Formats: sequence, structure tokens, C-alpha cells
Amino acid sequence: MREIAVFAGSAHPELAEEMCAQLGVPLQPVRLTRFANDCLEVQLQANCRERDVFLVQPLVTPVQENLVELLLMIDAARGASAARITVVMPHYAYARSDKKDAPRISIGGRLIADLLVAAGASRVLAMTLHSPQVHGFFSVPVDHLHALRELADHFRSLDLSRTTVVSPDLGNAKEAAAFARRLGVPVAAGAKQRYADDRVSISAVIGEVADRDVIVLDDEIAKGSTVLELIDRLRDAGARSIRVACTHGLFTAGALDRIGAQPDVLEIVCTNTVPVGASEKLTVLSVAPALAQAVQRIHDGESVSALFDTALPTTAPSTTAPSAAG
Amino acid sequence: MREIAVFAGSAHPELAEEMCAQLGVPLQPVRLTRFANDCLEVQLQANCRERDVFLVQPLVTPVQENLVELLLMIDAARGASAARITVVMPHYAYARSDKKDAPRISIGGRLIADLLVAAGASRVLAMTLHSPQVHGFFSVPVDHLHALRELADHFRSLDLSRTTVVSPDLGNAKEAAAFARRLGVPVAAGAKQRYADDRVSISAVIGEVADRDVIVLDDEIAKGSTVLELIDRLRDAGARSIRVACTHGLFTAGALDRIGAQPDVLEIVCTNTVPVGASEKLTVLSVAPALAQAVQRIHDGESVSALFDTALPTTAPSTTAPSAAG
Amino acid sequence: MREIAVFAGSAHPELAEEMCAQLGVPLQPVRLTRFANDCLEVQLQANCRERDVFLVQPLVTPVQENLVELLLMIDAARGASAARITVVMPHYAYARSDKKDAPRISIGGRLIADLLVAAGASRVLAMTLHSPQVHGFFSVPVDHLHALRELADHFRSLDLSRTTVVSPDLGNAKEAAAFARRLGVPVAAGAKQRYADDRVSISAVIGEVADRDVIVLDDEIAKGSTVLELIDRLRDAGARSIRVACTHGLFTAGALDRIGAQPDVLEIVCTNTVPVGASEKLTVLSVAPALAQAVQRIHDGESVSALFDTALPTTAPSTTAPSAAG
Amino acid sequence: MREIAVFAGSAHPELAEEMCAQLGVPLQPVRLTRFANDCLEVQLQANCRERDVFLVQPLVTPVQENLVELLLMIDAARGASAARITVVMPHYAYARSDKKDAPRISIGGRLIADLLVAAGASRVLAMTLHSPQVHGFFSVPVDHLHALRELADHFRSLDLSRTTVVSPDLGNAKEAAAFARRLGVPVAAGAKQRYADDRVSISAVIGEVADRDVIVLDDEIAKGSTVLELIDRLRDAGARSIRVACTHGLFTAGALDRIGAQPDVLEIVCTNTVPVGASEKLTVLSVAPALAQAVQRIHDGESVSALFDTALPTTAPSTTAPSAAG
Amino acid sequence: MREIAVFAGSAHPELAEEMCAQLGVPLQPVRLTRFANDCLEVQLQANCRERDVFLVQPLVTPVQENLVELLLMIDAARGASAARITVVMPHYAYARSDKKDAPRISIGGRLIADLLVAAGASRVLAMTLHSPQVHGFFSVPVDHLHALRELADHFRSLDLSRTTVVSPDLGNAKEAAAFARRLGVPVAAGAKQRYADDRVSISAVIGEVADRDVIVLDDEIAKGSTVLELIDRLRDAGARSIRVACTHGLFTAGALDRIGAQPDVLEIVCTNTVPVGASEKLTVLSVAPALAQAVQRIHDGESVSALFDTALPTTAPSTTAPSAAG
Amino acid sequence: MREIAVFAGSAHPELAEEMCAQLGVPLQPVRLTRFANDCLEVQLQANCRERDVFLVQPLVTPVQENLVELLLMIDAARGASAARITVVMPHYAYARSDKKDAPRISIGGRLIADLLVAAGASRVLAMTLHSPQVHGFFSVPVDHLHALRELADHFRSLDLSRTTVVSPDLGNAKEAAAFARRLGVPVAAGAKQRYADDRVSISAVIGEVADRDVIVLDDEIAKGSTVLELIDRLRDAGARSIRVACTHGLFTAGALDRIGAQPDVLEIVCTNTVPVGASEKLTVLSVAPALAQAVQRIHDGESVSALFDTALPTTAPSTTAPSAAG
Repeated sequence: MREIAVFAGSAHPELAEEMCAQLGVPLQPVRLTRFANDCLEVQLQANCRERDVFLVQPLVTPVQENLVELLLMIDAARGASAARITVVMPHYAYARSDKKDAPRISIGGRLIADLLVAAGASRVLAMTLHSPQVHGFFSVPVDHLHALRELADHFRSLDLSRTTVVSPDLGNAKEAAAFARRLGVPVAAGAKQRYADDRVSISAVIGEVADRDVIVLDDEIAKGSTVLELIDRLRDAGARSIRVACTHGLFTAGALDRIGAQPDVLEIVCTNTVPVGASEKLTVLSVAPALAQAVQRIHDGESVSALFDTALPTTAPSTTAPSAAG
Repeated sequence: MREIAVFAGSAHPELAEEMCAQLGVPLQPVRLTRFANDCLEVQLQANCRERDVFLVQPLVTPVQENLVELLLMIDAARGASAARITVVMPHYAYARSDKKDAPRISIGGRLIADLLVAAGASRVLAMTLHSPQVHGFFSVPVDHLHALRELADHFRSLDLSRTTVVSPDLGNAKEAAAFARRLGVPVAAGAKQRYADDRVSISAVIGEVADRDVIVLDDEIAKGSTVLELIDRLRDAGARSIRVACTHGLFTAGALDRIGAQPDVLEIVCTNTVPVGASEKLTVLSVAPALAQAVQRIHDGESVSALFDTALPTTAPSTTAPSAAG
Repeated sequence: MREIAVFAGSAHPELAEEMCAQLGVPLQPVRLTRFANDCLEVQLQANCRERDVFLVQPLVTPVQENLVELLLMIDAARGASAARITVVMPHYAYARSDKKDAPRISIGGRLIADLLVAAGASRVLAMTLHSPQVHGFFSVPVDHLHALRELADHFRSLDLSRTTVVSPDLGNAKEAAAFARRLGVPVAAGAKQRYADDRVSISAVIGEVADRDVIVLDDEIAKGSTVLELIDRLRDAGARSIRVACTHGLFTAGALDRIGAQPDVLEIVCTNTVPVGASEKLTVLSVAPALAQAVQRIHDGESVSALFDTALPTTAPSTTAPSAAG
Repeated sequence: MREIAVFAGSAHPELAEEMCAQLGVPLQPVRLTRFANDCLEVQLQANCRERDVFLVQPLVTPVQENLVELLLMIDAARGASAARITVVMPHYAYARSDKKDAPRISIGGRLIADLLVAAGASRVLAMTLHSPQVHGFFSVPVDHLHALRELADHFRSLDLSRTTVVSPDLGNAKEAAAFARRLGVPVAAGAKQRYADDRVSISAVIGEVADRDVIVLDDEIAKGSTVLELIDRLRDAGARSIRVACTHGLFTAGALDRIGAQPDVLEIVCTNTVPVGASEKLTVLSVAPALAQAVQRIHDGESVSALFDTALPTTAPSTTAPSAAG
Repeated sequence: MREIAVFAGSAHPELAEEMCAQLGVPLQPVRLTRFANDCLEVQLQANCRERDVFLVQPLVTPVQENLVELLLMIDAARGASAARITVVMPHYAYARSDKKDAPRISIGGRLIADLLVAAGASRVLAMTLHSPQVHGFFSVPVDHLHALRELADHFRSLDLSRTTVVSPDLGNAKEAAAFARRLGVPVAAGAKQRYADDRVSISAVIGEVADRDVIVLDDEIAKGSTVLELIDRLRDAGARSIRVACTHGLFTAGALDRIGAQPDVLEIVCTNTVPVGASEKLTVLSVAPALAQAVQRIHDGESVSALFDTALPTTAPSTTAPSAAG
Repeated sequence: MREIAVFAGSAHPELAEEMCAQLGVPLQPVRLTRFANDCLEVQLQANCRERDVFLVQPLVTPVQENLVELLLMIDAARGASAARITVVMPHYAYARSDKKDAPRISIGGRLIADLLVAAGASRVLAMTLHSPQVHGFFSVPVDHLHALRELADHFRSLDLSRTTVVSPDLGNAKEAAAFARRLGVPVAAGAKQRYADDRVSISAVIGEVADRDVIVLDDEIAKGSTVLELIDRLRDAGARSIRVACTHGLFTAGALDRIGAQPDVLEIVCTNTVPVGASEKLTVLSVAPALAQAVQRIHDGESVSALFDTALPTTAPSTTAPSAAG
């Protein structure tokens, strides 16, 4: 297979630029035409033939536009005889549609995975999927990264002697626990419980948070309601300070302002898997180096998991075995 | 197979309502949820199990939203055990992306056809596709209707003794010729020629139009530039009056106003394959009865082509044979 | 489609017999031959042609034997021109292999789903899958039942005035909450936390259990370690009495005896999705009526979800929306 | 991928020989056996394992024999572990069956494309397909060449000062316009119009041809009726001399003699995409160098479109955009 | 599914006519067009929509023409929304290409099976396939008939007291043995042995044939060399009289005359699975009633094997088991 | 493609070890976990990314366990981005299920082939398949070796002056004939005939065996009944000594002891395609060098058939032609 060719859709060209700078390759130009009838056409403006093509496109607002653009890019790369087409999708928004919890609904997480493959995707590079089962929705190989190293490196500069990592949802606390292990601090979790169909409530915080410097860690923050409710609980429980961290900083509906307006929230930290605006308390960490390293390893045929092994929440066989044996 | 279940996406519920009224069946409700992260979820709110499901959605602006919504509806119907899923797509906008006239471009017409099938579509009901070859992009059966009967019925109320049908493009004049035969009038055509890459010009009008009442017939009108140029040529050639007719009245970029502002244009006629606004000179004909009749025949296993045979531009074997033999 | 034809593999013929009695149809005979070289061959000994074929086989020990037998049954039914092949798999053991939590491991939950479809399965009828995302591993329609109605009916005969339902895992507490709503009692949950890779620990019980009659509800019990640890915690917390309930009673490694030996455990309740032995404190509820009703509705093209709607943990759109919006 | 291995079917071994001479590789032997029951068997008599295999076979008379032989060659190459199988099909006769212009007819252009892929073709190298949409019938990458460079080089030796290129069909005049641009001469076109189902008529020639040296350019000439009729019109219009040029010189039903017998036809020019006999006025240009160059570039992973870009009729984005916007 | 619609290709319309007469349905017309470029186009000239379509076409000389015509018929039926497409292929000539006995050869038996399915065939009705494994080449259901009933009925009118059935090939003697059982007579077999690569020889006849009335039974006779050699051996062994019977009477290369010219050959019997000429000693039995009955049963969803069970060479489980256990 | 990575399942690690020693590469470790619910999980414990992965697993007892383990290994390799996955299956037990000789039975030979491909196998390396047609069951390339070279080398050390090779089944005598040619000795064959459904009988031995040193050659020996019966016939016919040879020595049901107990059986020879126990008269030849050589050639893109050509029973085109022409 010949050299790497990286193209970016409209969703997040800055991230692609940064990845290319890391890789030492040019970001190849893409022409996107929108016709009078609102249809899109994509032209990849560099030779793809026998190249190892990477298409960078997180599924962010406007999701449908970005998705169809991505599908057209894959189609163009396939028609242009790419040797391999890797979809670099740092945020897979449809991963949340992962189950059929009402009759006759779409399961978008599986459908979009199938559409990407139908269009010609050979593999996918994803980051912090909403649930680990979404990996299994793809019929092509998926490299699934996380941003715990970047987040941990950021917080290591602080005095962590009184720090506790808190997961908003005990049920999905594996990532927070792995993160806490990286920092060498204890972990706690909100116990999210639904009392009724139309109301989510944090009934309790499990673990000691009184007089602690809390780092709240979630996979993504959109409207921020869960995090805001958790902050209330932490405050009730006497937390000394609060920092909020996540991988995907979607921050819709004024979430950034609403969280930032909490006086005891010292800092909000997210990564650039999606484009994110500026805000006084906001720190944005770049995942471009990690993505670029993964792209290079994919191209070179080296293990990607090796990169992240020490950070993987659970890799030992014994963890899996009791789970099935419980 | 059990009874018909018709659902409509967001693109054109009025057409679906009208079809259902014709069919004597209810239009079943669909719940469309847009999440905070801009992802869509569809719930079909009536039993689909073993039903003959019809999903009505022309691909009109916003095309990408409507397309993804349609794909999710297909997925939901498949997951809900529909016996058969027919996509009723009165306007297939991506049909215009039907060839690779530049290197490394997407061929959207074929890609979207494949995606619809990947999502679970069993068959397609389309109307006046931009080129007849697009039919062959689908790997599932396609019923391809046209609106010549509706258009002809409309014009028959006029005095047609001095009428000539004019196709803007001689190369695609088959439909205009068939239409003229229906009205029993002669046909002429604009000879559209590209002198340079960036300029389209009508060099001539083939056929007699001086002192004639002209009906310009095209498959679709978007920005209207071709039609406006043809009107200039017709005026130069001494046409007595001009009426403009098309199946798909997209009318973007003020096309409706600009065409309507021509003093010798007496009337603009289109159908409701796509939602269309009101305008003084505009007449909108309904294709809902034709679509409803086709749906009923598909459900009953009766020939759909039988409905339209007399109107099909070319059905005799002898037409095809010389084409290949030329 | 012609009449129902039900066949059972070796895994659990008693359940199939009971389903057939409910349906009022005979259980059709299957001949299973094991050759000298240990290969299996299946002969379905009743006409399948154009029949609505149902193959009953939970994936229980010996799982690999039962799985290959099932695949051969599907192949035989397909070759025999079955109109539709529904795999009735009341226990899908491989559902637990639903994620890639270590590099280069198999994702059995997705693979086996693909193999069933490759062999010719048209649809699947499953019960209480380990995680709801597993539904999305199947590219054919899945009807996903649960046994909450059967379990609730059983416990309603008790005095429930001081009863609390406890989920061993707060993260998967939706089913327990739905079950508690059915009984009109409060819900609590164990907060399962992993302190190290080789040790699972219940750190706390969220909710009031002191002096309560507790019903522990889990989806399946295999070795029973989680339940036993939870029982310790409940005892510590002053629970008045304990009953243990689950859908899939695998009870390996002496689990039934070990749980039954706890003096404050009054009763162990499971269903017959898998074959289960007898024990003094054990009550086995039959899901055969529910499965038979689902089979009948699948055959008749009636909604299966309608059957279970009132019991579905979360069906209102508003529940899903905040989840994606959190 | 290892070296190139070229094999030729029975349709046109001379072309393959010439391509191999250009490439500097041997034409590998193929054994074709016809059994007593008229079935064919193919043996590729050189190692294909991990080779970049090219199978040269235009679909010429006997088309069905050549097609099945080609499918068997693909099957043999796949079974022999070819790394990639490129079908070199300089004439794709079934491209003319590209639409469903009558009910219940086959669409051979799409079907044969699917069969080639089902047999194992990885890609296709084609030349001057009858309509550009046929490209979209293939689900594998297609390199679509044309012969305008070869044809233009031939005519450049003439005095072109009074030359006009004439397309027999204004609707398909793009290729003629591109060809005229190459020669730096004006273009004209016959306006082919069907007055009735059983009669084709050239109603007019658009553009100036009086006292001009005309080069008639068509994609293929089979029976030649269209060209002969056009010659009559050109004669009526006072053309000074006529030359006839095409890519695919099928010349069936005595077409070569009938066109050659026209006294004002000075020359007939075609290429060797198909085997063609000798005739006094006939000049046959070789496309073997162009095909060999394309094969080499496909093997080397270099852009094929780059080769032909200056000759492509329409490559600028602006051309496509107005087309959709018209 | 609606009524049966039977169409016939060019290979053997007489057989289809006879089948339709038996079924009491009309043979629907097919229009086959051969264009100037030798391509074929098929139009099925009766409504196929939701019909149970049967396409009758044995693969006889010219095999490639008949095969491509059949593929186009399948394509047309699929495009015309047939509910089910059954290929009725009484002779599958490519079944002989069933193994890879030389490097880099095509396996036509599997390839053609795949092509039929790729074109859209839902199922196949075949007769006396050359080897039983060919059944497994198809990924769709196959009903595999034989003609032993017809052949046995014919010979029962003779005095069978001194009759022995002889298979030319002991290795494929199962059919002959089953046939002998039907007639209640003993069986013998030629022991065909290859001494060298280019010479087949019958080294011996196993079983008693001296002074017996021999019926030689083979699946097909093409050039007839094996049968002629066997006749020599039978004559050497003192057979009293010889009759030759087969299902597929291809009789190429003068086989009919050469066998008929043997003075001790009293009669040659074959069926009409393929068109067969007349000859003095030849008796042609019709399989149309059997095929029609199978078509009716396929349509009605009744067991086809039931029809032929008593004639199947080996149906008891015990036969299969020792085979694997040997 | 990068280097070779060989993994072995549980079926026969010794063979894989020996192959790796020959290849000079390490046998990579595999972790097999069996969960409490009897499900398997596989982890390939070496980087597979872009590697040329070979998975060694004959389908021996317990066949179903070994098969599912193999499928999971393929899935893991695919998910781990193997460049190519070759299944090395020295014994394909399901090859015996190659036909539908009873209604509604499974055809395991085809089904398992499809499952291997569905799981992700790119190609198969097999040895001495039960019937050559089984090759055609696979839709991916198969390299089909035999062990005649190994067996012949062993016997060449004997005095072969009075030796005759005997095939138990004349119908499958090709391999024995090829073997005899290698040794330069004559061939004979048992004429296996079934007199009734439940009884197999050797009616005769064709060829001279009186006072000969006989080598009985079969593809596999399971229960050994056929061989034992043949030994009786050979004894009756006055054979001087008997040696028994086969490729696959399954030796179930005490076959090894029962054959070894025959006083005139001097030696039993088999290969290690399957694990085989020790016995006084037993000699086990290793196929590891042949498999290793094939693996190396597959990796290097060299012809595998070249290796075995001189040994292939029938490679000349003339052999196939008469077969189809008979």
C-alpha cells in the first residue's frame, strides 16, 4: 500500500489540519459542491489510487449534512481506487441510538455503521464511543481510542492530594475508575436513578467527596443537565472544589455557560474531538497527536492497542471472566 | 401480505395525506425526535408487522435531513418486521449525480440507491427520473411513473389548434414528443449546446414555432436558467404565446418570479411531487391520484406499467432495436 | 404463509413441548445423527415447504454443540424451502461477549448473530438479553421479550407491604425499577464497584433496605458470586428477609446450593428459559405461555410489543431524549 | 502486489498481444476447452497467485460465448488467488441495454456488470461506454478511457482549415465538441428526432457545414443507418467532403461497404477496440498503447484520469453545477 | 403468492408447452431481441408482479446463448416484481465442471450456480444432476428430481425375468441399483478404470451378465464412448440382449447412430430433458408430467420429495451413517 | 503484506508447532477462555495487524467445540486487522456431509464453508477432502493438498516387487491409482456395493491380488468397517500380506485395535493431519513439512499446485475432456 492521503469533510477541518501537521503530510483538498436542488457532490482533489486514504469527519451538528458528505467522500474514494478507506470519526453521535427501547424505532447506531460499510469504508477509527457494545455494530475493524491520557496529563499539573474522580453514572463508571488509577486518586460515583419516566435524578453520591477536590468525568456533555444535577449533589455533600472533564464537549443549549456559571466549578476541560467554542473557564485539549499516532500505526501495521494498553480500563482476562461468571 | 400501511417523512406530508385520502387508508403517524446532539430517531407509530409498508418522502430541501430521516424510517420498518417496504420517492434529487464527469467525484445517484437498499428498502416508486439509466442504479424493482397524463389533461381544455410542444433539450426530447402525441400537436426542441465549459447556450430551435402557442415541457425546473434562455429564443422566433410545464417544480433562486415576470409567459404548470409555493401564474397539478393508484396496484400485484403504457414514450421493440443498431 | 411448524433442538425440548401444547400444534420430530467422526447431521422430519418454521434452542451447556446443531437446523429448514425461519432462543449465552475490552479478542455476541443469519435465520425471538445493545448485533428483526410479568405474578401472592426490589448492579437497574413499578414497591440497588482487576466488590446498597423484605432481581445467575456478596451486604444493612429472582437460572458451580444455604434466603425464583434442576427453595416459572403467545402473534402479524408494552421499562419518548441530551 | 499477468480470451487476442508488447510483458497462455456438451472450461496457464491479473476481452460477436468465457476466466483467476482481477473490456456491448423503456425487459447493462462482480472482478477498464451513466452500473471501480487522442492525432495530419466536426446526435454531442476543441475546429450536430415509433429521421443539421470538410464522429457504428442518413443530410447541405470516424467499428450488415460506397466519403476511421476487417477506405488506429499505459498506471497506482484529463469533455466543476441548476 | 406464470427460453419450448398443458396454464410469451451488436434483450410478455414465476431452460447447445438468455429472463422477472423465480433447468450441463482437477481452472458448476442467484433466482428445479454434490453448489433451495419412475414404467412392459441392470461406472452405481430395485431385477456394473491419462477403459463387469437381457443405465450420454466400450465388454461376457437407457440424451458426435448401429442393441431410451432427434431404435419418454407435478407442488407448498421418496436411491439414516463411519 | 503469524486452536497444537519449526517462525499464543455459561472467548496474543495470519485447526473430536473455537479465532483476527486469514484445516470432517440424500437434511459441508467465510476467512488450506466437489463449496480460494508423496516415500523402502495398491472403493479409486503410479506398481480395487439400505458389502476385488503384497489405501479410516471387510476379501483372494494406509487416521470405536489384531496386517500407516494415538503396528507420517511449505508458498505468492503437480492424480486436460464427453 502506498502513502497516506488524508482528506477532511466540512465538520472539523481544524482537527484534520492538526493531525496532518503531526503526521508531516499535507491535508489534501476536497471540493464540496451544493447544487441548486440541495444535493451534494464531493471531489477528492488528490490521487487516491492504491493510497491509504483517511477521511476525517466527526458527526457533529449539522449531523445529517456531515454524515451524507462523509458517505459521498467514501464513495468517491472507493471509485477512485483507494487501497483502503479508514473513516476517522472522533465523535460518533449516532452511537447513542444503540438499543430498541420502544417499539418500531430506528437503531441509528447500527444503521449508520452499516451505511458506512455499504458506501465502502474499510475500517473506522473512533474515540470514546458512548457504549462499548457499539464497537460490535460495525462489520469492519474498529480502532477505539480514548482520551484518558490527554486528560490525565492535564490534571497531573494540579495538587492531587485531596482529589477524587467522580463519575456521574455509577453504571458507566469504568472509565472514571481507570482515569482515577492513572492519577492515583480515589473514585466516587453519582447513583443516577430514574424515579419516573420523565425525570432523572441523582439520588446519591457513592464514595467520599466531602472536602475533596472533585474532578467530574463524563464521556460527553451535551445539554449538561446530568452534570448540573451532580454538581448540586456534590455541593450538598460538601465538596471543596469541582472541575468538570469530558471527551466530547458538545455543549448545546448554553451548557457551557450554565456549568461555567456555577461558582464552585473551577474549570471545564474537554478535547477537540468536536469543534468547541471559547469560554472563560474552558480548557480544550487536543487529541490530534493521539489520532495522528493511531493513523501512523494503522498505516504501518503496528498495534494500536499497544499505544493505549496501560490506559485501557480492563484488559486482564480475569476481569472478563467473573463478569460472565457472576 | 396484510394491509397497506402508509407513513410520511417530513419532506411532503401533504402529498402523503392526499394519497391516503385517495386510497381510503389513514396516514399512520411517525414520531421524529431530534436529540440534543442533532441526531434523529424515528418511531413508526402503527403496527408494521407483515404489513405492506409505504414510506412517502421526496428528496427535497433540506435533502440530507430528508434522506437520513428516510433511511431511519426504512430501518425502523425493517426492524418492525414489515413484510415489504416500498419507498415512494416522487422526486429523486440525487438522480442528477449519475455520471463520473470528473476524476474522483462521488456518483450520488448510485450511492443513495445502494444506501436505500442497505437500509432495507424492498422496492421504489419513483416519478420522472432525470435520466432513464438511473433506473438501473437500483438493485431492487423500481416502478417509474411520469406525469404526462396529468399535464396533458390540464392542457386539453385549451384551444390547441396552434399549439406546439417544445423541449428545451433536443437530446432529451423523448418525453416532449410523447407529450405532443398525447395532445395531437407537433413538437419542436431547443438545441442546447455548450460552446465553452462555463457557458450554456441555445443555439437554435429545431421545428416551427413562429406564430405558435408554445408549451415548453421539461422534467424539472430549479434555477430556471435554461427555460429563461429558451423563452428568449422562442420570442426571437416569433412564438405567439408561451406556457411552461414541468413535473418537478423546484423553483429555487427566485425562478418562479423570474419566469412569471416574462410578459409572454401565460402560465406555469407543475405537479406536487415536491412542495411548491403559490404564485399568480402558477398551476399545480396533483400526482397523488396517480401515486395512490400505483400503490394500490403494487399492493394488489397488478401491472403498474399497464396504467401508463399508452403514455410511455417508447414501448415498441422496434424503437430499441434501431437504437442499438444505429 | 402456511401453518406454523415448530422443531426443537437438543437443548431444551421440554420448553418446546410446553410451547406447542399452548399453541395447539404438534412438536415436529427432528432426527439428529452423530457420525463416527463426531460431525452432526440434522433432518427435520416434517414438511417445511412454505411453512412458518420456528426452531427452539436456547444456547445452554454444551453451548457449542447446541449452537452448531441450531445452525444445521436452520440450514436444513432453508434447504427445505421454509417460508420463514424464526430462531426461538430464550437464552442467548453469547450476548455477554458484547464488547472488545481487550485487544484481539473475539466479539462472540456479534459473530454468532452473523452466523445465524448466514445460515438462513429470518428472525429471532429472544428473552432478556444481557445488554439491550445486543439487539443491534442482529441484521434481522428481533423480538425481545422479558419475564417480568411472570415474575411479578408470582410475587403478588405475597404480602408486599414491606417489600423492596433490589438490583445487584445499579448500572443495570432499569429492569429492577420496572419490576418494582409492577409490584408497586420501592427499588434499591447494589453499587457494584471493581476495586482491582481481580476482585469485584459491592461497596454499598443505594436505597432503604433495613427491615425490608427484599427481592433481589437479576437477569441471570451463573456462579452466583455477585448475588452472594449482595446478600452479605443486605444482611449487614438489616434486611428482614431475602428472596432471589432471575430470568435465566444457569446455576453453575453449585450456585443453587450455595444461595439456598443462606438462612435468610427464603426463596429462589427463576424461569425455564434454560433447563433447571430441582432444589428445596427453588420455584421455576414457565415462560412457555409468553413464548407461545409471541410465536402466535409473529405468525399472525400482530404486534408483539403490544403484549409487553405496559411492562417495558422505558417506552416514553421523553426518557430517551434526556438520555441523549444529558 | 506482485507483477502484472495479462491473459486474453478468444474475443480479440491481437489487441492483447499488442498491449503486452507495449508493456514489455508476455501474454500468458489460456487453455479453453469446449466439452462434448458445449460447456466451456478455462485454464489460466501461468501462476496468478498474488499477481495483478488483467483479462482482456471486448464483448464482440459471438457476445454470449465471449461473455461466459470471460466469466470463467475471472472465476479461474479468483480460485487461483489472484491479488486483483481487472477486466479489460475495450467494448462493453451490453452498455446499450441501459434503461427500462418497456415493461418487463432485462437491463443487460446492469445485469452483466453485476455478474462480472459476482464472478470476482475487482475492477474494470473500459473505453467509450455508450452512455456515461453506465459507469454507475458497476459496484467496483471503473477506469473509463476514450480514444479522442488517437483519433485527433490521425486527423491533425490533414489540412483542417475548412474542417467541421459533426455529431450525428445533438443530444450526445459532448464527445464531438471535445474532439473539435482538440482539433481547434468548429462543431455541428445532426438533430436526430423520432417522429414516430418506427422511424428515425434527421430533421436538421445544426451549425454550418456548407462547403466544409466534415468529420462525422460517433461512439460506435454497427449497421450504420444513422451515419448514412446523416451523410445524405450533409450532402443536401453542401458539405465539401466527408470523413467518418468512430471508436467502436462493429460494422455489421455490410455497413463498411455501404458507407465506403458513398462517393463523397473520403475515409472511414475507427480503432481496434474490436477486431475489424480490412476495406479500401478504412483506417484502423490502435488503442493498445493507451490501454497498456492505463494498465501500467493501474498497476503502479498512478492516476489514470491524469492521462486523459486534457481530453475529458467536461471536467470543470462549473459544468456540472449548471447542469443540476438548469 | 398469486398464480403460476410459466415462461420458456429458446432452449426447449416444447417441454415447457407440454408442462403447461399438464398444469392447465398457458405458456406465457417471451420476446427475445438480438441487436445488431449480438446482444440479447428479453421481454416477458405477461404480468409477473407477485406471480410465482417459473422459467424453463435446460442448458443445451448452444449452452452459452441459452445461459445468458436465462440470466436475462431472471433479471427481467426480478425487475418486474416477481414474487418468486424458480429456474426449471431439467439439464444443468455445467454440473460436470464440479471440481478443480488441474491448477487454475474454472469450476463452472459453482460459478454458474452463483450467477443464477446473483441474477435473482429464488430456487432451482433440476433433474439428475451429474453428481449429488452439485446440489450443494447452490445457495438457494434446489428440488432435485430423477427420471427413474418414467424409465421403470417403460421397461415394466417387457419380460424382465432374465433382465439385469448394468451401470457403466461402479462408482456411480447407486442410481442403477435403485432402478434395479424398482424393476425387481439384479444389478451389475462396469468397472471403469483409467490406465493412463488419455485412455479410459472398462476393465471388467462386476456381476452376472452372461445370457442376460441387459439394461445399461447412465445419467447422460454425450459422445457415447463409455457406453460403446461397455457394450463390447457385455458382448464379450455373453449378454443376450442390450438396451441402453439414460436421462439426458445429448447424443453428440453421432452417438445415436453409433450406438444404434450395434446389432445387439435392441433399444435406446432417454427422456426429453433436452431436445432430442428421432432415430429408429430411439424411444423418448416425457418428464413433463413429473416436472409439472413438481411445479404444482412447489407452488402449493407441498413436499416434492414425497413424490419421489420411494424412488430415492438412499433415504434411510442408516445408509448415511455407515458411509461416514467406514 | 507483512510477516506470517501462525496461531493454533485446541484441536492439534502439536502439528502447528511442527509446522512453525519448519517455517522458522514462532507459534503465537492464543488464550481460550471458557466462561461459567460455557461460552468461549479467544484472544490472539500477538499483533495481527496487516499480518498474513494462518489459523491451524483440523475439525476433529470434539468437532463442534473445535469449529466454534476456529470461528471465534477468525473473528478475532479479522477484528484485529489481519491482512489475510488463511484457515489451515488439515482435516475437514464436515466434507462428508456433501449431498442431500434424504429430504430436509442439512448439508454441513456447504454450511460450514459458508460460516468460515462469514466469520472472515480469506482462504483455506485443506488436505485430502473426502470428495473433490467439496472444493466448490467454498467461495474463497482453497489450496487442496494430498499426502501421497509422504505415503509413497514411506513405502519405497520396502521391496515392492510383488506389491499391489488396493482401493476399498472402485468408485473413488483415482487416488489409489495415482499412488500406485508413484510406486510403479499395479492397482486393484474393492467393488463396494450396497445390497440393501442397511448393509454394505464388498462384492468383489477387481484386479489381481493373489499372492501379492497388498497396500490398502483410503482417504480416512474412522470405524474401519470397510477396511476390515476388504481385508476379509483380500484374505479370501489369497493376498500374501496386507498393509493399511490412509491420510486421516481417525480410528474411532477401537478401529486401530481391530485392524491391528488381524494377523496378516503387517502395518498401519497414517499421517498426523489429526492427532493419533500410539499402537504397535502403527506408523504416523508427518504432513507438517508439506503444510509448512504450502504456507510459505501462499505467503510468497508462489504456486502451490507446482509443489504437488507430479503427484496430482489427474492434471492433464485430456482427462477432463473425455469425462465430460463420455
